[in-house]
Amino acid sequence: MKSLEERILKDGIVAEGDVLKVGSFLNQQMDIPFVGELAEEIYTLYKDSDINKILTIEASGICIASLVALKFNCYAVFAKKHATSNIQGECYSTHLHSYTHNTNDSVIIPKSYIGRSDRILIVDDFLATGEALEALIRLVDMSGATLVGCASLIEKVYQEGGNNIRKRGIRVESLAKISSMNGKSIVFCQ
Amino acid sequence: MKSLEERILKDGIVAEGDVLKVGSFLNQQMDIPFVGELAEEIYTLYKDSDINKILTIEASGICIASLVALKFNCYAVFAKKHATSNIQGECYSTHLHSYTHNTNDSVIIPKSYIGRSDRILIVDDFLATGEALEALIRLVDMSGATLVGCASLIEKVYQEGGNNIRKRGIRVESLAKISSMNGKSIVFCQ
Repeated sequence: MKSLEERILKDGIVAEGDVLKVGSFLNQQMDIPFVGELAEEIYTLYKDSDINKILTIEASGICIASLVALKFNCYAVFAKKHATSNIQGECYSTHLHSYTHNTNDSVIIPKSYIGRSDRILIVDDFLATGEALEALIRLVDMSGATLVGCASLIEKVYQEGGNNIRKRGIRVESLAKISSMNGKSIVFCQ
Repeated sequence: MKSLEERILKDGIVAEGDVLKVGSFLNQQMDIPFVGELAEEIYTLYKDSDINKILTIEASGICIASLVALKFNCYAVFAKKHATSNIQGECYSTHLHSYTHNTNDSVIIPKSYIGRSDRILIVDDFLATGEALEALIRLVDMSGATLVGCASLIEKVYQEGGNNIRKRGIRVESLAKISSMNGKSIVFCQ
C-alpha cells in the first residue's frame, strides 16, 4: 500500500537492533484517520471471507483491530500478555517471547471469547519473526475456531515470520512489506 | 445512556472486591458496533469543544479512544504503563497505583506527542477512584496542552474519583453512572 510505504519513509525511525519505530503515527500516537484507511484496505482484502471476529494482542494491535472490526461490523478480542486478577473463568494460554523487549509472557484469552462457531481474522501492527502471530494462531487452534487468515500493517519479510506461516497454507496479508533495512535506509518489496 | 446501563445489567459481572467485570463486551472482548455507539455519544457531548487529540491509557482505553478519535477525525495517544525499550526520546512521566490489580506503574508519554497547541479530551473505559484519570491529567498539565475535559464509559460515582476532578472545575462526562453495587445488584444514578 503506497500511502503506508510513503508514511513509513517520512515518519518511521530506524533504530539500533534492526528496530523500526512508528510510534508517532501508528503505535503509541495514532493518526486515526490514516489508520482508518489501513483498516479499510484490510477489509477490502478479506471482505468476502465471512469473518465474524477480529483477534489481536495488546497493546499496539488494539487500535487497528478495533477499526477493522468496525468495518466488518463485528466483535474484536485481544489476547492479554499477563494473567491479571481481572480475567474471569478458564482461559486458553500460550507463551510468547518478545525480541523487541526481550520478555517472556503468557498470552491468554478466556475460553468464552473464541470458539468453534467463530471465523477469525488475526490482525496486528507488526510482523517480523512471527512470534506474536504464532501465539495467536495457537490460541485459535486450541479454541476450535476457524482461522480465515492474518493481516499485518508492516512486515519485515527478511525475518521470515510471515513466510513460515504462509508455507503452512495460512493466508497472510501485509500492507507494507520491507525487504531490507540497512542503516537508515528502508527498502520495500516490489 | 440507557443502552449501556441495560448492557451492564445483562452482561456485567459483579465480582469480589467491588469489581465490575465488563470484559465480555467492553474490555478484552469488544462489541465494536456497540462501542461505536458509545463513541458517537462522547462525540456528541464534546463536538463543539474544538478537540484535536484524544488521550487514554493502555490497554483497555485504546479501543474507545480510537473510535472516539475516528469521530473527531483526529489523532489518539495512549500513555504506556511501563518504560519500554521501544520509546523514543524524552518523556513526560508520572506514577499510577492500580487498585484493581494492586500494581504501581510509571505512566509515560513521549514529549513530542502532546504539547501547547493541543486541545485534549481524555477518554477511558472506567472511572472509579480516579487514579488513571488523575495520572493522565498530570501528564497533560506537564505538557502545557489544554485539557478540554474527560469522558468515561462507566463511573462508580460512590468512589468519588470523578467528583474530586469535577470539584476542580474540570468537565467529566460518564455514559453510565453507578451509585451503588451491593452483592450482585447494580444501581444507576437517576
